[in-house]
Amino acid sequence: MLTYTFEKGGGISLYEQLYRHIREDILSGRLHSGEKLPSKRMLASHLEVSVITVRNAYEQLMAEGYIYGVEKKGYYVSTLEQPLRSSSSPMVQMAEPVKTYQLDLVTNSISAEYFPFTVWARMMRQTILEQDKKLLVPPPYNGAELLRQAIAQDLQQFRGMTVDPEQIIVGAGGEVLYHLLVQLLGRDRCYAVEDPGYRKIGQIYESAGVQLRRIRLDDAGLSVEALRGSDADVVHISPSHHYPTGIVMPITRRQELLRWAGEKEGRYILEDEYDSEFRFVGRPIPTLFSSDEHQHVIYMNTFSKTIAPSIRISYMILPPHLLTAYREKLGFYACTVSSFEQYTLAAFMMQGRYEQHINRMRNRYRQKRDAVIQIICQGPLAGRVEIMEQDAGLHFLMRLDTRLPDGRLKEQAAARGVRLAMLSDYYRCAADAPEHVVVVNYSGIEPEHLRLGMEQLAEILEGSSCTTN
Amino acid sequence: MLTYTFEKGGGISLYEQLYRHIREDILSGRLHSGEKLPSKRMLASHLEVSVITVRNAYEQLMAEGYIYGVEKKGYYVSTLEQPLRSSSSPMVQMAEPVKTYQLDLVTNSISAEYFPFTVWARMMRQTILEQDKKLLVPPPYNGAELLRQAIAQDLQQFRGMTVDPEQIIVGAGGEVLYHLLVQLLGRDRCYAVEDPGYRKIGQIYESAGVQLRRIRLDDAGLSVEALRGSDADVVHISPSHHYPTGIVMPITRRQELLRWAGEKEGRYILEDEYDSEFRFVGRPIPTLFSSDEHQHVIYMNTFSKTIAPSIRISYMILPPHLLTAYREKLGFYACTVSSFEQYTLAAFMMQGRYEQHINRMRNRYRQKRDAVIQIICQGPLAGRVEIMEQDAGLHFLMRLDTRLPDGRLKEQAAARGVRLAMLSDYYRCAADAPEHVVVVNYSGIEPEHLRLGMEQLAEILEGSSCTTN
Repeated sequence: MLTYTFEKGGGISLYEQLYRHIREDILSGRLHSGEKLPSKRMLASHLEVSVITVRNAYEQLMAEGYIYGVEKKGYYVSTLEQPLRSSSSPMVQMAEPVKTYQLDLVTNSISAEYFPFTVWARMMRQTILEQDKKLLVPPPYNGAELLRQAIAQDLQQFRGMTVDPEQIIVGAGGEVLYHLLVQLLGRDRCYAVEDPGYRKIGQIYESAGVQLRRIRLDDAGLSVEALRGSDADVVHISPSHHYPTGIVMPITRRQELLRWAGEKEGRYILEDEYDSEFRFVGRPIPTLFSSDEHQHVIYMNTFSKTIAPSIRISYMILPPHLLTAYREKLGFYACTVSSFEQYTLAAFMMQGRYEQHINRMRNRYRQKRDAVIQIICQGPLAGRVEIMEQDAGLHFLMRLDTRLPDGRLKEQAAARGVRLAMLSDYYRCAADAPEHVVVVNYSGIEPEHLRLGMEQLAEILEGSSCTTN
Repeated sequence: MLTYTFEKGGGISLYEQLYRHIREDILSGRLHSGEKLPSKRMLASHLEVSVITVRNAYEQLMAEGYIYGVEKKGYYVSTLEQPLRSSSSPMVQMAEPVKTYQLDLVTNSISAEYFPFTVWARMMRQTILEQDKKLLVPPPYNGAELLRQAIAQDLQQFRGMTVDPEQIIVGAGGEVLYHLLVQLLGRDRCYAVEDPGYRKIGQIYESAGVQLRRIRLDDAGLSVEALRGSDADVVHISPSHHYPTGIVMPITRRQELLRWAGEKEGRYILEDEYDSEFRFVGRPIPTLFSSDEHQHVIYMNTFSKTIAPSIRISYMILPPHLLTAYREKLGFYACTVSSFEQYTLAAFMMQGRYEQHINRMRNRYRQKRDAVIQIICQGPLAGRVEIMEQDAGLHFLMRLDTRLPDGRLKEQAAARGVRLAMLSDYYRCAADAPEHVVVVNYSGIEPEHLRLGMEQLAEILEGSSCTTN
C-alpha cells in the first residue's frame, strides 16, 4: 500500500501533500501505467487521513489526467509517454544594457516638471467618481464616445477640421493603428514611406509583411514624380512637419498628391501628423484630410508626443467608405486603450486643459530651443555651425563645418560621451544624404551637458582639421 | 490694390483675417497664378495696418505654399492645380445600433460592485506619488520592470511557474500579442486553432494574413492526431479551460502535444490561459509552459478577465531563444500599455490585492453560478435541462431537451428578448456539433431577468413539442 508521511503546519493541506506524493510516484515511474490505486476508503484508513482528503487528491489527479477512474472498479494510473516535470528555468539571455551618454541629441525626452501631474491626477479621480460603472464596460471598438467627441471638438476648434466622432478610431499608439490599417487596406497592396524618414515606420510595414517602397524627397517633401514611378498604392507621409528634414509640404505638392490618389482606384494617403502641434511660427497648416473631397486621406495623430510618451493613445480618422469597411472587417477587435485613460484624457480635453498644456509646452519648447541654439552658436563651435529648420517640432538641424565623414564623427563623439544622429542616418542610402548635418532632438537637453558636449565636438572638429592639413 | 475690411473684437487677429482674405482670393481665382502681390509696406499703408501684420500674413501664406517669394522682387501667387478647400464633411454611415435583450446569455459582463474601485484609485494616487518622473519615461519594449516582477512573483506563488521577468512581454490585450507573435514566428508558417473555439482567435490569424487550420477536439481537448494530419506549425490552445466546451486537457494529451512540438524544427504551442483563474474545484492545473523542457511553449494570460474588460493588459512569456529573436526583430516596438496602468497594476499585485480580488471574485462567481443553476433547474425548464461543465470559468453548458434546431431556437429566443449562444455556433461546421446545447455566460445575469427568460424558453420548447406532435 502507498505509504507517505505528511508534514503538519507547513501551510500545505493534507490533500495537497497526498496529491503531490502520488504525482511524484507516477512521474518517477514508481507507480506504473495501468496500476490500480487503493480504494479511497482503504488508503484513508492506511494513512490515517479522512476519506475526503483522499477523494480530493484523487479528483485533482484525475482532473490533471495522472489517473483515471473506471466506474465500480476504482482508479488506475494513466499511461504517460515521457516523464513530464517542472523544468528548471532555462537560461535567459539578458538584454544588452543601454549605454548612457553625457549628452544625448538622439532621444527626445520630456522633463517631468512639464507634465501637469496634479491636473491629470484630479482628472483621474474625477473619472473614477463620474464614470463609475462605465469604466467596467469595454469601450466600443473605436474608443470611448466621450473621448472621440473631445477629439472631434478639438480638431474643429484648433485645426478647422470637421470630423464626425464616429470616424475616429482610438488605439494604443500609432504602431497599433498602422497594423490595423494594413489589415483594412489589404496586405496585397504596396505601401510607400518617405526616404529619409522615421526608420521605424518602414520597419513596421516590413514586419506587417507588405511590399514597401521608399520614395525620395525634394525641397517640397515627398516627390510625387518618384511616387508615380513606383507601384505604391498607399503612401504614408508627414506633410505638416517632416522628420528629420523639417519640411512643411506646400499646398501645390499637397494638391499633386491628392491628384495622384484620385488617378487610380484604391489609392490612399496616410497623413501622419504626430508632430504638428509644436509649430513656433504662424498657424498650423490645413490638413490634407480636410482638403480631400474624394475620401482618399486617412488622418492620424497621437497624444504620446503632446502629453507624455508613456501615455499610449493615438487615433486615426477614416473617410466614410473606409469606416464602413473597417466595421465589417475589423470591428471585432477590442479597443486597445483602457477606458480609464480614455475618460481621463476626454475630461482633460473637454475642460480645455489639453490646449492649455500644448500652449504651455509650445512656449517652453520655444524657450528651450532658443536656449539650446544660443549655447551652440555662442559656444566653441561658433562660426562652424549653421542652424536650420528650427520653426517647428522638437528637433532642428545643425550643419557642421567639417570634412569628417558622418560615421567617423558619430563614433568619435560617442567615444567622448556625446550621442549624435546624423541626417544621413535617416536615408536608406547614406550616399544620397547631405553630409555633416546633425539632427538635434533638443527637448531633453540639459544646458550644462550641452556646453560640455559642444566642447567635445569642437575638439573633434579641430583634431580632424589638423590631421587633414 | 487688394482691399479688405477687417472685423474688430471678433477674436481673430488682423494678420489672421488678412491671411484668410488673401487665401480666399487665391482659392476662388480672383488672384491669378503668378500674379504679383503688393509689397508689404504698400499693402500695409493701403489697408492701414502695420507692416508686421502683412508680413505675418504673407509668411503664413508662404509656409502653406499659397504664395512664393522671389528675392529682391516680391511675392507671387503659386500655381494651384485645382480649387482646394475644406470640403463639407461627407456623410458618415452610423454603426448599427446594438440590440438590447432582456436576458443576454452571450456576453459576460462584470458587475460594477465587484471592482475594487477604492483600492484601485488608491493605487493610482500612490503610483502618481511614488513613480513620479518614471511615469513619463516610456517603459521598455516588454513592459515596466516592476509589473513584470510582480507577474513573475505571482506566477511562482500561485501557479508554480518559474519565470524570469525578462521573458515577459506586456501588451494591450491578447489581440495585440497574437499579432506580435505572428511577426515573431513568421507569416509563412501555418497556424492552427481549436474547432470549436473562440471565433475571434481564428479571425485574428486570418486578418494577420497567415494560413489557418481548424483542428477538431475530442474528449481530451485538441486532437493531436488531427493536428499531425494538418500542416500546422503553431497551435493556439487553451488547455486549462477550453471555451466553450469547458474541457480541461489531461496530462496525457499535454504530453502528446509536447511530443508533437518536438518532432519538427519550428513547431510551437501557444498556451492561452485567459480563463484559468476561476476554477472552482481543485488546484489549478500545472501549465504546459512549465512542463516544457525544449522551449516549444509560449504562455499567455490576461488581466482583462480577472480585473475588468476595460483594463487592456495582457502578457506573454517567451522561451529564452524566442526572447532573443523577439528583441532582435521586434524590440523596436513601443510597449502598448501606458506606464500609469502598468505601475498601478504592479502595486495592486505586489500588495496582495490581486490574489485577494481573484479569491473574492471566485467566490462570487461560484455563488452566482450556483444561483443561476438553481434558478434554471428549479424553474419552468426543470426536467428538460442538463447542466454540464460547470467547474471552471465564467460559463457552463446547458443541454435542452428539445428537437428544435439550434438556429430556430436562437431566432425564437431572440424574438422574445433572450439572446442565446449555442455550442454549435463555435464550430466551423455546425453539423459537427452536439445540438441543443446552450453556452451560458453567467457572470452578468440578473436573477429576475433569468427567471423571465427561462419562462420564455420553456414556452418556446413547449410550443415546438406541440407542433411536432
